[in-house]
Amino acid sequence: MENVTALELHRKHQGKMEIQSKVPLENQVDLSLAYSPGVADPCVEIHNEPKNVYDYTMKGNLVGIVTDGTAVLGLGDIGPEAALPVMEGKALLLKKFANIDAFPICLDTTDTEEIIRTVKVLSPTFGGINLEDISAPRCFEIEERLREECSIPVFHDDQHGTAIVVSAGLMNSLKLVNKEIENIKVVVNGAGAAGIAITKLLLSLGVTNIIMCDSRGIIYKERPHGMNEQKEFIAEITNRSNETGDLKNALKDADVFIGVSVANVLTKELIDQMNDEPIVFALANPMPEILPDIAKEFGVRVIATGRSDFANQVNNVLAFPGIFRGALNVRATDINDEMKLAATKAIAALIEPAELHEDYVIPNPFDSRVVEAVSKAVSEAAIQTGVAQISLQK
Amino acid sequence: MENVTALELHRKHQGKMEIQSKVPLENQVDLSLAYSPGVADPCVEIHNEPKNVYDYTMKGNLVGIVTDGTAVLGLGDIGPEAALPVMEGKALLLKKFANIDAFPICLDTTDTEEIIRTVKVLSPTFGGINLEDISAPRCFEIEERLREECSIPVFHDDQHGTAIVVSAGLMNSLKLVNKEIENIKVVVNGAGAAGIAITKLLLSLGVTNIIMCDSRGIIYKERPHGMNEQKEFIAEITNRSNETGDLKNALKDADVFIGVSVANVLTKELIDQMNDEPIVFALANPMPEILPDIAKEFGVRVIATGRSDFANQVNNVLAFPGIFRGALNVRATDINDEMKLAATKAIAALIEPAELHEDYVIPNPFDSRVVEAVSKAVSEAAIQTGVAQISLQK
Repeated sequence: MENVTALELHRKHQGKMEIQSKVPLENQVDLSLAYSPGVADPCVEIHNEPKNVYDYTMKGNLVGIVTDGTAVLGLGDIGPEAALPVMEGKALLLKKFANIDAFPICLDTTDTEEIIRTVKVLSPTFGGINLEDISAPRCFEIEERLREECSIPVFHDDQHGTAIVVSAGLMNSLKLVNKEIENIKVVVNGAGAAGIAITKLLLSLGVTNIIMCDSRGIIYKERPHGMNEQKEFIAEITNRSNETGDLKNALKDADVFIGVSVANVLTKELIDQMNDEPIVFALANPMPEILPDIAKEFGVRVIATGRSDFANQVNNVLAFPGIFRGALNVRATDINDEMKLAATKAIAALIEPAELHEDYVIPNPFDSRVVEAVSKAVSEAAIQTGVAQISLQK
Repeated sequence: MENVTALELHRKHQGKMEIQSKVPLENQVDLSLAYSPGVADPCVEIHNEPKNVYDYTMKGNLVGIVTDGTAVLGLGDIGPEAALPVMEGKALLLKKFANIDAFPICLDTTDTEEIIRTVKVLSPTFGGINLEDISAPRCFEIEERLREECSIPVFHDDQHGTAIVVSAGLMNSLKLVNKEIENIKVVVNGAGAAGIAITKLLLSLGVTNIIMCDSRGIIYKERPHGMNEQKEFIAEITNRSNETGDLKNALKDADVFIGVSVANVLTKELIDQMNDEPIVFALANPMPEILPDIAKEFGVRVIATGRSDFANQVNNVLAFPGIFRGALNVRATDINDEMKLAATKAIAALIEPAELHEDYVIPNPFDSRVVEAVSKAVSEAAIQTGVAQISLQK
């Protein structure tokens, strides 16, 4: 029944989003103001002073959602047309949660240079760019280059959105078990975009002992097989004692398991390797690395998943709407690490110490305080790091 | 006062258009249908059968309005950001008149090849492309190449929208003066995008005697100065007796003057050269080649301008909404000459012979019959010429 309903919903209106006017268009006078000849006036104002584009057009509230359709949901490389329903949905989330207008840009190319060039050429229309469902490792270079070369903020949600929500949940989980972030051992299982971004963000939050595993086991310096530029980098910044072996070896005395891998890989045998009061983020979708009730049976203290039908849902919607809202509100030219850290701390801080418990380390996605808290923290971090072009929310 | 009001209107909401949801997004269940996990179902359906993208996404009702900001209104090359208010306005006209969702794409490049490549890369999202305010002669190659290389219809409104409405108005004017289109002499003054498109369409409607002038006078074969590829082509297809000289020479015994040039060039002396009952389309904006009351004083029988404050307004809104509606309704892969001719005849036919008079040769832009008549004619022409992918309006 659910399958039929989702298809029916999409077929009913031929998609989910539409363009609407914010101005009246009922008669000749309306047209002469919204279109020719009146429209020449804002054109001239913008031509004379480029920053006026934020006052007279939709640019300042507009995010382009850019994909090449190569890593869509769990479906993989399904192409730009088949990715469009996801991009429309993402656009609606930005509207719903942060009143941001967003528009899907599904690109008929998977060439890194062509994607970069296309986004740069498109940038006059947009106030920000959200990269979505672009496969690793191209997504890393595309984001990095666009952050350098574009004057508008560029954010790859699959990396940073997930990293921010996981890190916020981990900060709160550590309070429950009375462990300091500097002292914990974390194992990240899965070396895709999300796993790498989580690892980087945890390092900047103060974690010192992280090991990343992929399907070949622990990632270490000069591992002879299955390495790439990103994994070489991971091997440099993690795994300080250069451990080798498989996931079971990695989990020895680990405090935290973060899975961005595949269903059911976290067994009792593996959990038994971990330190007291283990914390598990099992983010494989739709079936996590371990189901919450089984994890608890095996002694896991806190478990979070990507699913809405369990407690502690890691849902990117807690991060990206407020992040873009905060960036747009101060016309930020970048979404930098400080802004991502600020978002992480703002999400964690929404749960008061007294409210905190095993099944509530991450706020609910529909908690109406989230967007404002994240947006404010991100705007402030943008101002403090000098990437804001205006100081006050309009 | 009017200037202030147009600026105020644009500033009030920061632009004129926004994105809206067509589906409910109030709770977790709504989200699970519009976004993950439900959204995977339409993705899979499209991946399995590409044409399903028209059933499950906004593509089939979505037009991209593409500009590089080089020929905006009468303002010229003001750049992509300053062009954005016009593109937002154009998008609203498509919504208002034809219920089409349209989105502005302002490109930060003026390179012909890069514009072509960018539009092709963007095409998965869109059901059609409207090229807008791109300067000649690049606009010709860009449209021609995209029509060949894209699987969705591409239409340059500045050329064909104007040509279609002028031609419709001319067909009706000729009924008033009892002249056959095969026998008339037409002078087109102005060799920009609109002038060239008007000339081509009139030739395909049956006009045999056309002369085009630019600022250097009559365009003729092997003219030594001020020629380009397009003007060489015009010299080949017009001016059969290879006349030379200035506009005055051209207008000798002309039945029709079509100005897409500059204010006030059409003087009494020039009109006196023309045949009996001259017909004048004076389309320079905002000040036409001659004002209607002066033209009538000088013996002009029918005069049309681009202005809404005079009778017989040549307004592209009579053409492009119905043309895109008609193309989208049958998922046309092109907007070909036959479809443009069909639109011309449909617009002309809306005025019954009994209603026809000097001040009513072109329908009013707010005439609610226009879009449906044009759309139907365009869909039928698409089906007849084999560019329609479906046969019935959905």
